[in-house]
Amino acid sequence: MARRDDNISYAELSAYLARTAVLEQVQGLLIWDLETCMPAGAQEQRGKQNGALEEIIHSRWIANELGDLLDAVGPAGLDARQSAAIRVARTRRERAVRVPVEIAAEIARVTPETANTWAKAREDSDFESFRPMLERMVQLKRQEAEAIAGDGCHYDALLSEFEPGTSSEEISETFRRLRDSITDLLGRVRDSGKAVPEIKGNFPKSQQIVLAQEIAVEFGYDTSRGRVDQSVHPFTAGSHNDVRITNRVDESDPLDCLYSTIHEVGHALYEQGVDEGLGSTILGTGTSMGVHESQSRIMENQIGRSRAYCNHLYKRMCDQFGTSWISDTNDLYRAVNAIKPGYIRTSADEVQYNLHIMLRFDLERALINRDLEVNDLEAAWNDRFSEDFGYGVDKASNGVLQDTHWAQGGFGYFPTYTIGNIYAAEIMARVARDIPDLDEQVSRGDMSVLRAWLREKVHRHGKVHLPHKLMEQVIGHNPTEVPLIDYLNEKFGALYGC
Amino acid sequence: MARRDDNISYAELSAYLARTAVLEQVQGLLIWDLETCMPAGAQEQRGKQNGALEEIIHSRWIANELGDLLDAVGPAGLDARQSAAIRVARTRRERAVRVPVEIAAEIARVTPETANTWAKAREDSDFESFRPMLERMVQLKRQEAEAIAGDGCHYDALLSEFEPGTSSEEISETFRRLRDSITDLLGRVRDSGKAVPEIKGNFPKSQQIVLAQEIAVEFGYDTSRGRVDQSVHPFTAGSHNDVRITNRVDESDPLDCLYSTIHEVGHALYEQGVDEGLGSTILGTGTSMGVHESQSRIMENQIGRSRAYCNHLYKRMCDQFGTSWISDTNDLYRAVNAIKPGYIRTSADEVQYNLHIMLRFDLERALINRDLEVNDLEAAWNDRFSEDFGYGVDKASNGVLQDTHWAQGGFGYFPTYTIGNIYAAEIMARVARDIPDLDEQVSRGDMSVLRAWLREKVHRHGKVHLPHKLMEQVIGHNPTEVPLIDYLNEKFGALYGC
Repeated sequence: MARRDDNISYAELSAYLARTAVLEQVQGLLIWDLETCMPAGAQEQRGKQNGALEEIIHSRWIANELGDLLDAVGPAGLDARQSAAIRVARTRRERAVRVPVEIAAEIARVTPETANTWAKAREDSDFESFRPMLERMVQLKRQEAEAIAGDGCHYDALLSEFEPGTSSEEISETFRRLRDSITDLLGRVRDSGKAVPEIKGNFPKSQQIVLAQEIAVEFGYDTSRGRVDQSVHPFTAGSHNDVRITNRVDESDPLDCLYSTIHEVGHALYEQGVDEGLGSTILGTGTSMGVHESQSRIMENQIGRSRAYCNHLYKRMCDQFGTSWISDTNDLYRAVNAIKPGYIRTSADEVQYNLHIMLRFDLERALINRDLEVNDLEAAWNDRFSEDFGYGVDKASNGVLQDTHWAQGGFGYFPTYTIGNIYAAEIMARVARDIPDLDEQVSRGDMSVLRAWLREKVHRHGKVHLPHKLMEQVIGHNPTEVPLIDYLNEKFGALYGC
Repeated sequence: MARRDDNISYAELSAYLARTAVLEQVQGLLIWDLETCMPAGAQEQRGKQNGALEEIIHSRWIANELGDLLDAVGPAGLDARQSAAIRVARTRRERAVRVPVEIAAEIARVTPETANTWAKAREDSDFESFRPMLERMVQLKRQEAEAIAGDGCHYDALLSEFEPGTSSEEISETFRRLRDSITDLLGRVRDSGKAVPEIKGNFPKSQQIVLAQEIAVEFGYDTSRGRVDQSVHPFTAGSHNDVRITNRVDESDPLDCLYSTIHEVGHALYEQGVDEGLGSTILGTGTSMGVHESQSRIMENQIGRSRAYCNHLYKRMCDQFGTSWISDTNDLYRAVNAIKPGYIRTSADEVQYNLHIMLRFDLERALINRDLEVNDLEAAWNDRFSEDFGYGVDKASNGVLQDTHWAQGGFGYFPTYTIGNIYAAEIMARVARDIPDLDEQVSRGDMSVLRAWLREKVHRHGKVHLPHKLMEQVIGHNPTEVPLIDYLNEKFGALYGC
């Protein structure tokens, strides 16, 4: 086509992409609604809605109009943001062009039904009732992966949606080194024989919800641009000026609600912290799930489970629940860092958590690469769990049914949790140099300096930089697993005297 | 173009229209979310989402593809539903073709901001802070009306979206006759000097919400395909298997919450009662707002405020709130039918309610037909109110700011409330012949026979019949205001001995 004026065509391209971005926001709202509000009987209808919306968005990515606009914009005279938008758009378009529209729409259509069946199967702890739907989902995701990957690794085609610029091969190697260190540390903790104090009492739902909301605000969550609801599996949805989080309440364990809230607030702060100018553009959300997860892990673990924060949390919890639930701050610190046997990823401690992830990473990689069938999945899960944790899974809801990800078609997502832990440790090593009195601030519940640091270095950039580029910019080198291993050894070595 | 096989092209047309219908369901969900959940800071972002979705839907209605499909389908061999779908599609397409896409998108874009500003202005009782936004909205709606109407009546172009097949001229004449009778009845009520018992006490929000939910279910609302939330202005949103209602709570007046719930349940039963086969098609919602309103008025007034239902409601309220709030069933019956001075349409009695509507109808008709400017609207409202009610409006939140409709761009909607009252009286006159022991059923809180009757005669048809055609089918003649006048005279004549 004839070469057009770059500025005019960039403005057109930008408008086209912004339109697509807001339609994707609507998709996000449908997911939020599905998990929090939607009546059970609406699942088929919602499937059609998702399918219709997905088809429109998909067709916008593959449209010749977009191709022409991308061709018309020359590299000269573009600023960093414009170049980034074009990079993101090219990648998205390439993926979309490769995936047949029928497959994309079918995935969108079956997802609500699959998620709903999963929720029921988990309640009944009955994998068989979920298996046929999961099989269909895995088939669809394999087709999607193969369409994108061509000759490349199928699993990596899905992974790259969540963590662009990395490979499952690289991740495997990093995870292998990390796993050795963790197994070693875990052995020492077990050998220490040290008992852990437990929280006791009944913690009314309504009080937990109030405290969680207050703590979210203390961490900097802006409720004029978000809201807190309850769902089976806590999550963050939305971007820019509408970033919603959920938590869940266990009346015998307030830490579940509090720490899931702090975790989701970490995600929400990232989205709420993206520069106003990037809002409602295709650069207006976090750059990868690994970086996203680093933000939630910093808040949940590196800050939330620190001795300094426990000083503050102890006071806040005593205000709400009285003083009989634990003896003192130190016992709270030990309780929130307890390393105990358990089946559930989301309630695992910082050490064992990564074993949960590696298990899922290896299984989903095998599923997508056709090295494992859904028929054998439950057995494979149970075998691997026994091997890693030293005891067997007692029921499916504590095993293969515990997570929503696969029911949502989210294959390739799991490794980003541990990548997030790795990034979090790297970032906090840097923060320790830049904010020497952070502990003192945190012990007063003041996160403002840390939040400003994160906003400046990470949040505000949205998708302008690829994850590894952003991390290099923040920490000054390529991230490795070393700071995470050091952090875990130091913290849990001291706690368990090992 | 070449003539294609009718069956194939109808199937294609039907799939095309169904896709549009589910996108319109998504639009409905965004509105529900805006009114119930959306954080205040998200309004601009939501405006962009609405604009993007509206543009897509609009472009689907004006697309050549749809024109070709409509041309390709011949009238031969089509059943009633297929013919109806084509009729609805042709009407929608014609409207859409006439309205420039920029105007439709702009209306969608500004609506959240306008609604939000209205809510704040109403809180502050400050019309001036809302006026500029309302002016912009009126300008846009005038442009829309003029584009549709051509040489015809501008206001009727908007009216026909809510009540196809009627004219503001016809409505004016009916309203004039109705107004004479109502004024006459109202004079006699005032002259009777009869005092009305009042409900006294404090009625906790949580208990009201529980009772309202239970009563919704008693009326037949299916909560597996719906949910109840709170909002400033109660409303029903959605269709088919996802029909949501809202109510609001005043702790000194439980009747507000209860009767607004029953009203919305009437709407919801219509939507939930549409034939499964019409769900998620363009025929899958109520045929007009007048017929819709008849269903809510039957439940709220003809049933809900009947002596028979008050027997049941008295027991249900005593179970929840004890017995000190009123002396007996008869006093409850008199209380829920109190004719008292008041400013607010939604809490007006069945007699004065129609005066509120006629006021709004005349003002909005004048606004759209350029006989009145927004600048003069508050004064025009206040003058007319004094004239009709005999006392002045004390503040804007009790006057021109009380309703959300204009802020949402819903010009042409108001008359359908009184049309609904007219239809409701016609339908119930017929029901009285078909279900002679209805009172006995209602006094036990059993709505099942009435609900089945309404589902069979009205609900299940969705948009298959135009409103006047449907009404003729249900009652056997063209509806008039006479049964409503008879009903009001009989009921309130007896209550006030006049």
